[in-house]
Amino acid sequence: MSKLLNCSFDSYLHFGGRQFLRSASLHTDPCFSLGSGAINEPAEPGQLKPVNRRSWKQSDLHVVLVEPQIPQNTGCIARTCAATAVPLHLVEPLAFKLDSSKLKRAGLDYWPHVCMKVHSSWKEFINHYDQIQQPKRLVAFSARSSESFTGSGFHFQRGDWMLFGSETVGLPKEVLDDVYAQGGRVVKIPIVDRHVRSLNVSVAAGIGVYEAIRQVEQAAEESLTHSETTT
Amino acid sequence: MSKLLNCSFDSYLHFGGRQFLRSASLHTDPCFSLGSGAINEPAEPGQLKPVNRRSWKQSDLHVVLVEPQIPQNTGCIARTCAATAVPLHLVEPLAFKLDSSKLKRAGLDYWPHVCMKVHSSWKEFINHYDQIQQPKRLVAFSARSSESFTGSGFHFQRGDWMLFGSETVGLPKEVLDDVYAQGGRVVKIPIVDRHVRSLNVSVAAGIGVYEAIRQVEQAAEESLTHSETTT
Repeated sequence: MSKLLNCSFDSYLHFGGRQFLRSASLHTDPCFSLGSGAINEPAEPGQLKPVNRRSWKQSDLHVVLVEPQIPQNTGCIARTCAATAVPLHLVEPLAFKLDSSKLKRAGLDYWPHVCMKVHSSWKEFINHYDQIQQPKRLVAFSARSSESFTGSGFHFQRGDWMLFGSETVGLPKEVLDDVYAQGGRVVKIPIVDRHVRSLNVSVAAGIGVYEAIRQVEQAAEESLTHSETTT
Repeated sequence: MSKLLNCSFDSYLHFGGRQFLRSASLHTDPCFSLGSGAINEPAEPGQLKPVNRRSWKQSDLHVVLVEPQIPQNTGCIARTCAATAVPLHLVEPLAFKLDSSKLKRAGLDYWPHVCMKVHSSWKEFINHYDQIQQPKRLVAFSARSSESFTGSGFHFQRGDWMLFGSETVGLPKEVLDDVYAQGGRVVKIPIVDRHVRSLNVSVAAGIGVYEAIRQVEQAAEESLTHSETTT
């Protein structure tokens, strides 16, 4: 049985000119520990206590890995999620065990700070997603998309759930169909594709997460500047 | 003796609204093969032939790894460099051999498309850098910097050489001193540092490269728009 952890926290991320409140919370929805160990527990009691509590609504970005295959990549993405206070969702089947030493090593000693939830299937994930009441949107990353993640036709927004597929096959058609059916978007990180099929998924996830934060923060700043100049 | 390879190519990277010409060239400066094998040779003769040749000047971004320690990370960064047509420099000592199977595996079959040069020391790298006649600037990534890589006080520009340190100690003081002495900049990728010391270096390099391309492209577009409206 999985261990439950109330992993909700807020953190300030100094990303641009202003400090940027990053909030991660899965506390309405139990977090998951890695295997039978307690490595997803706070290193010190209360370490996950919020600096500046806000509601679930501020869990503004999520990363979702659909059927990941290489534990080192998932561990590396967990480290990125810990570093940015972004919850991580894993959709089974996984090609490794959650107590894999490779997975743990790649996440270093940051596991206590990762808000993670494992979904037994894509269908179960969609059921979970459907129940989210806050503004939300699915954003799938696919090398086959024609829409650039930094293009003028697409902008990240608060409430984006960023989906990444497996290392070998990417996102299944079923997933992309559901993304479209839910009003989501499919974007790509452009590459010189004459030679290279794709980026490493942990690199792609890092690029996606930081660009999303940059855009969400910029929109918030512009909104703030606008309200300051009109009041 | 290292094998020489004339690895100069241009590629179109569709990054935003417009297509963006990405050029990588080390042809004035011999490229390096990995170990004694021929894995840095084009898979097919002529595969590295330029789509649309431009001069060295358009090798507008470089990645420099100073004393990297983990071959998988260097291989993963080489894959990012192949995917973005950015030359890769490795500064010795390396904690692995260049024919390491772990290094090769992490770079997959993309090695023929990586423009790579190995420098025997930081001093030798600086000697090489000093001889570059084109516009250039050193941009060091350090978790200890107070300047965000997306902040209002810093902008990437054509000719940036992006430096990343080793997995355990980051960039040595000698390197940071030289960066300042050369008029370079030291920036950080912000993280929730209450819990996490740093991102994985291959993730950090990917984030840095894509943000640099985004900013360089945006500046080029704005310049183009400006010249279109004033002529």
